[in-house]
Amino acid sequence: MKVGGQHYRTIWPERSLPIGSQMVAIIDQTQLPHRFVTQRVDSVASMVNAIKTMQVRGAPLIGAAAAYGMALGVNADDSETAIKQAAHDLLASRPTAVNLAWAVERMLLVLLALPERERGAAAWHEAAVICDEDVAINQAIGQHGLTMLRTLAKELQRPLNILTHCNAGWLATVDWGTALSPIYAAHDAGLAVHVWVDETRPRNQGASLTAWELQQHGVPHTVISDNAGGHLMQHGRVDCVIVGADRVTASGDVCNKIGTYLKALAAFDNRVPFYAAVPTPTIDWSMTDGLREIPIEERDAGEVAYMTGMAADGSVQTVRVIPAGSAAANPAFDVTPARLVTGIITERGICPPGELQRMIKEANP
Amino acid sequence: MKVGGQHYRTIWPERSLPIGSQMVAIIDQTQLPHRFVTQRVDSVASMVNAIKTMQVRGAPLIGAAAAYGMALGVNADDSETAIKQAAHDLLASRPTAVNLAWAVERMLLVLLALPERERGAAAWHEAAVICDEDVAINQAIGQHGLTMLRTLAKELQRPLNILTHCNAGWLATVDWGTALSPIYAAHDAGLAVHVWVDETRPRNQGASLTAWELQQHGVPHTVISDNAGGHLMQHGRVDCVIVGADRVTASGDVCNKIGTYLKALAAFDNRVPFYAAVPTPTIDWSMTDGLREIPIEERDAGEVAYMTGMAADGSVQTVRVIPAGSAAANPAFDVTPARLVTGIITERGICPPGELQRMIKEANP
Repeated sequence: MKVGGQHYRTIWPERSLPIGSQMVAIIDQTQLPHRFVTQRVDSVASMVNAIKTMQVRGAPLIGAAAAYGMALGVNADDSETAIKQAAHDLLASRPTAVNLAWAVERMLLVLLALPERERGAAAWHEAAVICDEDVAINQAIGQHGLTMLRTLAKELQRPLNILTHCNAGWLATVDWGTALSPIYAAHDAGLAVHVWVDETRPRNQGASLTAWELQQHGVPHTVISDNAGGHLMQHGRVDCVIVGADRVTASGDVCNKIGTYLKALAAFDNRVPFYAAVPTPTIDWSMTDGLREIPIEERDAGEVAYMTGMAADGSVQTVRVIPAGSAAANPAFDVTPARLVTGIITERGICPPGELQRMIKEANP
Repeated sequence: MKVGGQHYRTIWPERSLPIGSQMVAIIDQTQLPHRFVTQRVDSVASMVNAIKTMQVRGAPLIGAAAAYGMALGVNADDSETAIKQAAHDLLASRPTAVNLAWAVERMLLVLLALPERERGAAAWHEAAVICDEDVAINQAIGQHGLTMLRTLAKELQRPLNILTHCNAGWLATVDWGTALSPIYAAHDAGLAVHVWVDETRPRNQGASLTAWELQQHGVPHTVISDNAGGHLMQHGRVDCVIVGADRVTASGDVCNKIGTYLKALAAFDNRVPFYAAVPTPTIDWSMTDGLREIPIEERDAGEVAYMTGMAADGSVQTVRVIPAGSAAANPAFDVTPARLVTGIITERGICPPGELQRMIKEANP
């Protein structure tokens, strides 16, 4: 999507450089929303570092970053030993990221089947294909979501107010995003949309990343505290909710950033449609009871105790917001039961949470 | 309650000073939780300033502060003109605070009925009575709440986990607080309680004030993001919710800090009892439909855009947490419909929201 009027993806190869010395460019997301900084990554070690420090984050983007990390590894040494070492290092950078493991395995499969001299070109090609596939999936999610939004706008005959939680935008993917893809598609198609952006404590992905990317692309939006959404829904000021998801069960339970469940409850209580937008690989067909089966990561309490922002002098500062000596807890995700979900938007179409299996079968006969 | 092992109220007369030159002491709440600073207030103007800058906040405490402000005014000049000017200045300090107007009117009524030479002693006496009445009401709320908590603890046979939102603690009153009064009563009575403290964005009254006062009094507690409560309830980690309220309708709708409604929805969805603790003057008998009738204050968007905390060097800093140029909205309160409320705890007793009128009649035949 656009930054300062120019089109960007979140990761791209620096094509101007000669084969064997190519580098990868990323947007350093730890600097957002206060500074837009792109950065060159020239080795496996620096890609591992970029993933670890969350300069790149979001499941699909981490997968793409790992794929390019493998390509950087092949640049340096195309032997089987070196490639396996690169895979090992990348896998260890964020051990719980499913997309990361998937991308590394895919690269390994392609690379080790080839003679050494062919591995360089193949690695850069395969990483690019992984990126393009992500973009295509997200674009399809956007088009299906757009159909839904058009119907809603026709019904209401006024600009749509859409609430989103956390960041499931293009910054979390290679481009377009998941939850935000239908919003970008609507905006680009000339449908009037305004986005309520949940701040999304404790890591503030809404206030920092979602607000920033919407602003750069020119989509009208307003940041609100996570507490405000229920009140807005009670007063008819939210027409639909679209969130992303880290995992969706076969039964349609939605595991997403902590606080999603509260918004789903409020949407249900006020008859506001509630959608989760996900690529189909995010559906975990092995699970049917999200509340009991999905493990919830407990993250560092420091994320609750400290907050980072820009001080008056332009420096980025971290401040403590709870008393010294008070404990904090930080469960990172929650599970929204399928009964509160209106529909799941995927690249194959939209369906009620209970009809995921049927939809996939029909779309893929 | 206790600060560093010593008993404090939020406001008190400096008794050591001679009549005519008395002063009032307050806790400067804008410095909390990072610094505990008490401050002398010696004139109407400085009390107006303390109220305006929220060094003192919370409806009952603002009332008490205004009463002492009137006493300071009489110290300086006991003429009717001067007293009326003091009343005018104090009333203008926070125009929407109902308790402030009530306390000023009460002081005026007492003072203007007396000859000038008796006004000084009467003013200091009446302000002290207003404070003592507040303490007595809150203590009674605590005792009724304690009975409820004892029953719950007996049923569950384990330490109680109580969730609260915002700050309805002793810092918002003269002592004890409203929502936290039952918790202090339980803790002091040896009942094992642990409090989940909602951060309460955007002004962070939970993370700063509630956490601080619980810590100082020695009550076990954990700060969580406002997003976390629903997840904790889904997993049986919250035994009851107690919040304060800015207004309760005759039908039992509860107007409280933004985000309260979301917690009430989650409590209802998980069969967790949800209580609002209020002095009976907070009940607005003229209203029966809180959602339609209660006006909701829209506060400055800067409260969402900026956050204040303690930097690594010990200085208190304010940082911007949303992108420059992104808009923010800040509705300050929401309304929880009576259907989600288990009970209202008052100084007269506890009752379901639909039985407020009956309870008051029975307690006051």
